[in-house]
Amino acid sequence: MKHYILNVKTAGEGDVIDITRDVGKFLSESGMSDGIANIFCEGSTAAITTIEYEPGVLEDLKRALNVIAPSGAVYKHDLAWGDGNGRSHVRAAIIGPSLTVPFSENSLLLGTWQQIVLLELDIRDKRSRKVHCTFTGE
Amino acid sequence: MKHYILNVKTAGEGDVIDITRDVGKFLSESGMSDGIANIFCEGSTAAITTIEYEPGVLEDLKRALNVIAPSGAVYKHDLAWGDGNGRSHVRAAIIGPSLTVPFSENSLLLGTWQQIVLLELDIRDKRSRKVHCTFTGE
Amino acid sequence: MKHYILNVKTAGEGDVIDITRDVGKFLSESGMSDGIANIFCEGSTAAITTIEYEPGVLEDLKRALNVIAPSGAVYKHDLAWGDGNGRSHVRAAIIGPSLTVPFSENSLLLGTWQQIVLLELDIRDKRSRKVHCTFTGE
Repeated sequence: MKHYILNVKTAGEGDVIDITRDVGKFLSESGMSDGIANIFCEGSTAAITTIEYEPGVLEDLKRALNVIAPSGAVYKHDLAWGDGNGRSHVRAAIIGPSLTVPFSENSLLLGTWQQIVLLELDIRDKRSRKVHCTFTGE
Repeated sequence: MKHYILNVKTAGEGDVIDITRDVGKFLSESGMSDGIANIFCEGSTAAITTIEYEPGVLEDLKRALNVIAPSGAVYKHDLAWGDGNGRSHVRAAIIGPSLTVPFSENSLLLGTWQQIVLLELDIRDKRSRKVHCTFTGE
Repeated sequence: MKHYILNVKTAGEGDVIDITRDVGKFLSESGMSDGIANIFCEGSTAAITTIEYEPGVLEDLKRALNVIAPSGAVYKHDLAWGDGNGRSHVRAAIIGPSLTVPFSENSLLLGTWQQIVLLELDIRDKRSRKVHCTFTGE
């Protein structure tokens, strides 16, 4: 078992960061051959998934997230705390903070157009996100 | 590898149970230091995710789930089986029953306002849910 | 750690394949007793989750996916690449490509009406999908 922490700077709400290469570097560093890689983001207003990292798709994803939890709606979280990020919490809970990807011969078993991404869903600009990469196997 | 079963009583549809402390207790009991914790809920009408466990956010999440699968819509599952929980199945399939969280020095690596929750999505009151907590590592 | 590849033929958009039996066969073949099974689908237009494998529910799920990313909407991905599968990418990113299920005494710890499914979300008929099944434990 090997564990690494990736610190990711995000620009603001809707920012999507391709972390595939970072996860791959950690895997390479680990020297492990076969197993599973868990990618987990700390915090309740960001999420991890895979997507084709292409500007059009990233825009399309934003629109879908706005259907699920519209930016114009009234959120009870915001009424209670004045945070303004009620939508961020809802979107993050639905997508989820964790992803587990297999690896073989020291390579992540992703599709060609399938990247591992961190979704910044919170409304504050210039955040720092902590992503844990844990490799289990041999 | 250590495996524990958590039995959770749920009140009814929309109930959200914070199980972070229970998972942490199992981890403590396991004596394991570093690895990954898999939390998995049996059944197709409940789900596991992380969220800030705050009443406002929990209400906001409910509204979003009602956008994805409205309580007033007609479900083919209900027409076929008369269960009335077609929406529960759809919501559960989209959020998913499993979550994998890393741990280090016998502590779950969660954010400060990030709790592990079981979402009861079924319509029957007073259910008992079986949640598996499996710790892999060393 | 044991790793198997399942090749799944899908009929077309909206096809849902129950792969529970296949995963169970691999588990049986592995001879492993206790641990976690990671099921991961390569590609950015398919997803893995659990659901009650019943025709009504599968139809209900399709309708919900069409709320999140409607088939009639204009997608920037399609404008840029002419693929026509912008909705497929968005739906897949939200549900996610990975699932981790515990097992005990060489059996998957699923609920009675809870099946592991591959969702084909892309628009091209007759695709072949590669699903990785990785068992970690003892």
